[in-house]
Amino acid sequence: MDIGTVVGLILGSALMMMSLILGGSSLMQFVDYPSILVVFGGAAASLMISRPLSLVLKFFNIVKITFFNKPVDIKTTIAQIVSLSETARREGLLSLENRMEEIDNPQMKLGIRMAVDGMSTDIVENILRTELEAVAGRHGVHKGLISGAGVYCPAFGMIGTLIGLVMMLADLDPATIGTGMAVALLTTLYGAIAANMIFLPMADKLSGLNDDELMNMEIVIRGVVAIQAGENPRVIKQKLETFLPPSERGGDEEEAA
Amino acid sequence: MDIGTVVGLILGSALMMMSLILGGSSLMQFVDYPSILVVFGGAAASLMISRPLSLVLKFFNIVKITFFNKPVDIKTTIAQIVSLSETARREGLLSLENRMEEIDNPQMKLGIRMAVDGMSTDIVENILRTELEAVAGRHGVHKGLISGAGVYCPAFGMIGTLIGLVMMLADLDPATIGTGMAVALLTTLYGAIAANMIFLPMADKLSGLNDDELMNMEIVIRGVVAIQAGENPRVIKQKLETFLPPSERGGDEEEAA
Amino acid sequence: MDIGTVVGLILGSALMMMSLILGGSSLMQFVDYPSILVVFGGAAASLMISRPLSLVLKFFNIVKITFFNKPVDIKTTIAQIVSLSETARREGLLSLENRMEEIDNPQMKLGIRMAVDGMSTDIVENILRTELEAVAGRHGVHKGLISGAGVYCPAFGMIGTLIGLVMMLADLDPATIGTGMAVALLTTLYGAIAANMIFLPMADKLSGLNDDELMNMEIVIRGVVAIQAGENPRVIKQKLETFLPPSERGGDEEEAA
Amino acid sequence: MDIGTVVGLILGSALMMMSLILGGSSLMQFVDYPSILVVFGGAAASLMISRPLSLVLKFFNIVKITFFNKPVDIKTTIAQIVSLSETARREGLLSLENRMEEIDNPQMKLGIRMAVDGMSTDIVENILRTELEAVAGRHGVHKGLISGAGVYCPAFGMIGTLIGLVMMLADLDPATIGTGMAVALLTTLYGAIAANMIFLPMADKLSGLNDDELMNMEIVIRGVVAIQAGENPRVIKQKLETFLPPSERGGDEEEAA
Amino acid sequence: MDIGTVVGLILGSALMMMSLILGGSSLMQFVDYPSILVVFGGAAASLMISRPLSLVLKFFNIVKITFFNKPVDIKTTIAQIVSLSETARREGLLSLENRMEEIDNPQMKLGIRMAVDGMSTDIVENILRTELEAVAGRHGVHKGLISGAGVYCPAFGMIGTLIGLVMMLADLDPATIGTGMAVALLTTLYGAIAANMIFLPMADKLSGLNDDELMNMEIVIRGVVAIQAGENPRVIKQKLETFLPPSERGGDEEEAA
Repeated sequence: MDIGTVVGLILGSALMMMSLILGGSSLMQFVDYPSILVVFGGAAASLMISRPLSLVLKFFNIVKITFFNKPVDIKTTIAQIVSLSETARREGLLSLENRMEEIDNPQMKLGIRMAVDGMSTDIVENILRTELEAVAGRHGVHKGLISGAGVYCPAFGMIGTLIGLVMMLADLDPATIGTGMAVALLTTLYGAIAANMIFLPMADKLSGLNDDELMNMEIVIRGVVAIQAGENPRVIKQKLETFLPPSERGGDEEEAA
Repeated sequence: MDIGTVVGLILGSALMMMSLILGGSSLMQFVDYPSILVVFGGAAASLMISRPLSLVLKFFNIVKITFFNKPVDIKTTIAQIVSLSETARREGLLSLENRMEEIDNPQMKLGIRMAVDGMSTDIVENILRTELEAVAGRHGVHKGLISGAGVYCPAFGMIGTLIGLVMMLADLDPATIGTGMAVALLTTLYGAIAANMIFLPMADKLSGLNDDELMNMEIVIRGVVAIQAGENPRVIKQKLETFLPPSERGGDEEEAA
Repeated sequence: MDIGTVVGLILGSALMMMSLILGGSSLMQFVDYPSILVVFGGAAASLMISRPLSLVLKFFNIVKITFFNKPVDIKTTIAQIVSLSETARREGLLSLENRMEEIDNPQMKLGIRMAVDGMSTDIVENILRTELEAVAGRHGVHKGLISGAGVYCPAFGMIGTLIGLVMMLADLDPATIGTGMAVALLTTLYGAIAANMIFLPMADKLSGLNDDELMNMEIVIRGVVAIQAGENPRVIKQKLETFLPPSERGGDEEEAA
Repeated sequence: MDIGTVVGLILGSALMMMSLILGGSSLMQFVDYPSILVVFGGAAASLMISRPLSLVLKFFNIVKITFFNKPVDIKTTIAQIVSLSETARREGLLSLENRMEEIDNPQMKLGIRMAVDGMSTDIVENILRTELEAVAGRHGVHKGLISGAGVYCPAFGMIGTLIGLVMMLADLDPATIGTGMAVALLTTLYGAIAANMIFLPMADKLSGLNDDELMNMEIVIRGVVAIQAGENPRVIKQKLETFLPPSERGGDEEEAA
Repeated sequence: MDIGTVVGLILGSALMMMSLILGGSSLMQFVDYPSILVVFGGAAASLMISRPLSLVLKFFNIVKITFFNKPVDIKTTIAQIVSLSETARREGLLSLENRMEEIDNPQMKLGIRMAVDGMSTDIVENILRTELEAVAGRHGVHKGLISGAGVYCPAFGMIGTLIGLVMMLADLDPATIGTGMAVALLTTLYGAIAANMIFLPMADKLSGLNDDELMNMEIVIRGVVAIQAGENPRVIKQKLETFLPPSERGGDEEEAA
């Protein structure tokens, strides 16, 4: 679990509150329930109009992913593929059957199983690539839901402010004009905070997580194909470690040996 | 039929009204017929200028699709293809002739008919892919019409507000300045609501429906090609189920058997 | 000729005027010659800076295309190709020489002539595809000119308003502040109307016309290649009709025959 | 040299001045040296931060290209290639050695020289295509510098206005509020004019010049490859003229001959 | 090290200060610590939410790259490849073992080592291309962090201004309204300067550095592949120098020799 998202949210909220207190303002001055309703209710309504209900209901599950993701460990993936390739080279492809249980990564499990089952390399790669594209597609839909919230929140913030301005202007009373405008501006403020401190950063996070996962899948695909083709484990290692930044690559001495 | 769009529209409208009532404002204060005319009439005019009349006349039919769509059922598509592939394997490709009637999906019907008619796999795939691209093209044009409304409505909202401001300023009367500006802002409000609560979410919905339908067509194409190539139904099932999220895939036991 | 563009322009202009009259304002209040000069003159200057003079001089010719375009008739194109393919099958490719005169479409004429002249299929397809790309390129340049006007008009609208504001503010007189601001806002209004009711919709229109024309050319290319390859007219018909929406396709009975 | 850019700049500047004079304002009211410093100095600083110094120093050279470009003459390019192909066909590829001197276009010169030197067609095409991509890359960098100015100028215009507003507001004096705001708005005005009447149109111009040059290079590449392959000059002519609009193509009579 | 970034930052800061002094304002009027906290603290919080903590912690290291980069020297890269190719041609591929030490560029070192180790050209090119894509991916992530700061700073600038306006309006006191608004606008000003004078130009810089490095890697890849294929050093030189602008290419006389 990457604690950045939690730390960032706490830090950001603390900062917003500190800035109010430093400004000598009471927190309650910034809370207006109808405004909250317009911004978040309006955004929720637009998300429901724009997407299947089954997807919208997953909203909080997807938000949770940004908090509780276990980072993809590419080094372990590579190490496992290299280890599997050594077994396959020494004892034959079928011997991987015995190592199925230790494989956690579902794509790797699927790929190795298909290889052991004797499917052709072409079909195995084709299925794994289709899987990668399907995963990318589903992640894109999930990210779109969160970034959609990041687009509709400021839109309803503006709508709320316009409603407030029309009310205030239609009934112009010099004594309350200030308070009226202050309340009217609150929805714009809510929308801007919701977008820039919650939903857009979360969508960025999902995007980064997706990139990592797809790179991991790409490594698995190349690894499984290489194992099935009986490639040299040393060459497989070098090929796959190319995805890592140089500082994280294994020692090169063996390669020169 | 996915009820999200209807529920979302009702929810959103209810919220907007509630916020007016909570604000102590009468609904009628927010209704101004000339403003409605400028925003929706202006957007309609721009859509007519920008697109063939025959397309613009389909506007409400396209809007209806966002309400009354029957969701694409990929699992049934796959099941049917697998079932057809089993028949084809057991009794030959020509035997599919007898199962034509039970096929509802028009692409699948077309593909199987062409296969039964003895067209080469290349031509069958080529025709089905051309169909997919043509469908994608038409859907893109439809979506463009709705998202066009989502672009022109706020534009005419701004134009209406400018017209109102010019009128008000040219004839500056402190007593009515508030009402004048309130009315001027109404067009911007209408434009923002029309875009963010109606047309842009609907365009998003059409986009998602299109993605689902194209994925279904892609599955049909791969299925028909695989049937024509006489592939193993078990392999076809595995290939096509890769498009589904893991939780919705059929049991894997048989595969290992 | 698609009348949508004309009808839309008339409708939009009528609406704008109605909204002024309903607002109790005189039309003349909205006409300011220096403002017109700044918006349209400025946009014209920027188009001249940004594009070759020979292109800018075609501005009104390109605008005219959005009014007086004859819609591409894909069904007729397909019917003619199928008819030509029947002749070619029955009487040989060279017999198409006699039908040259009845072909209006310049690409089809060029393609058939090259086929009759005995050029290889590869060269014929290569030349027709180069033509398609060249046409797409020229259309893109034309559309860019009109959408450029749609970008520069609001920009000079804002510039005009800034100029007006600076003048008004530098010489702040409570008696005329209203009229001053009203006039200053007129350029923004002109720019917004010019962009959203004239140039951007026209650019969209050109884009749609281009898409139709390119699809027609794609059909011609596939048709000519198929004729040259001596394909079955029935298969050619099916291939090309795939570009049409299902409702417009010819009867399928013959195919099953 | 295309005079459009010069004419457009003069026209635009004249219009701006006319609008001031028509508005009864003195030109000097619109000149404020600190404002000029903020907008253009700020944009220059940001360009220096964002790009290598050696590139920023070429700024005015690149601006000059938009004034003094000699338009690409595709017809002459085609005519020369066709003429070279006729020589090559009649007297052999090596005979082109004698015609090297009359070739001005550097890519054509390079391509023909490599062909005469006996390099393989693959290598010649590879080198010429690499050249095309390298030219496109350098042009993109140049265009990015100018459009960067078009982005940073309005940004510093807004920054200048904010600075002016803060100064004015911190020291609110009803007597000078108008002049203060007028001066504050000047930077926004400068930024808007610099972007929309100078840098963005110039960047568009560079873009168009680049497109023309790349098309010319594409024609040279196809021509050189065709000459090396010993293709029929008549076919080469037809292939290359496809890049021209139909109205500018050479007579077709010879082709039918 | 390219001094442009440092010079630009100094120049820009000097300009901003000069404009304050010329405006007769004290610097301290433009410093407000809570505002600084909201803009930069808020942006930092959003970056932490949106990206892995390990990446955010590299922020200043990445900023440093924009100051202290040593420019890629493509000419030296080409010269070294040509020199290596001459050795390989004269003394065989294995002789490059002795020249390993003089190679600084890590990709070139890796490529030549793999070639000397006897890996097939396909694998060598595949590994080097994977490396190039991995480098491009990492650079993209780094650039995204800096341009993310350039997006979140103005967003929190606007949020800060909204907070300030709500405070000021809720407690409307004609005597302090000016100061209140001045302070409220400061966050927008900070955000605009941070984005347009610091982070967005730096992101542009990183983008340009990345382009240069990728071009250098592309040259290394083509060079290593060419060396392994035993190509003529003269041809290799010509191929690779095509990436340079004509003015920087080596003499062409030898080529004609």
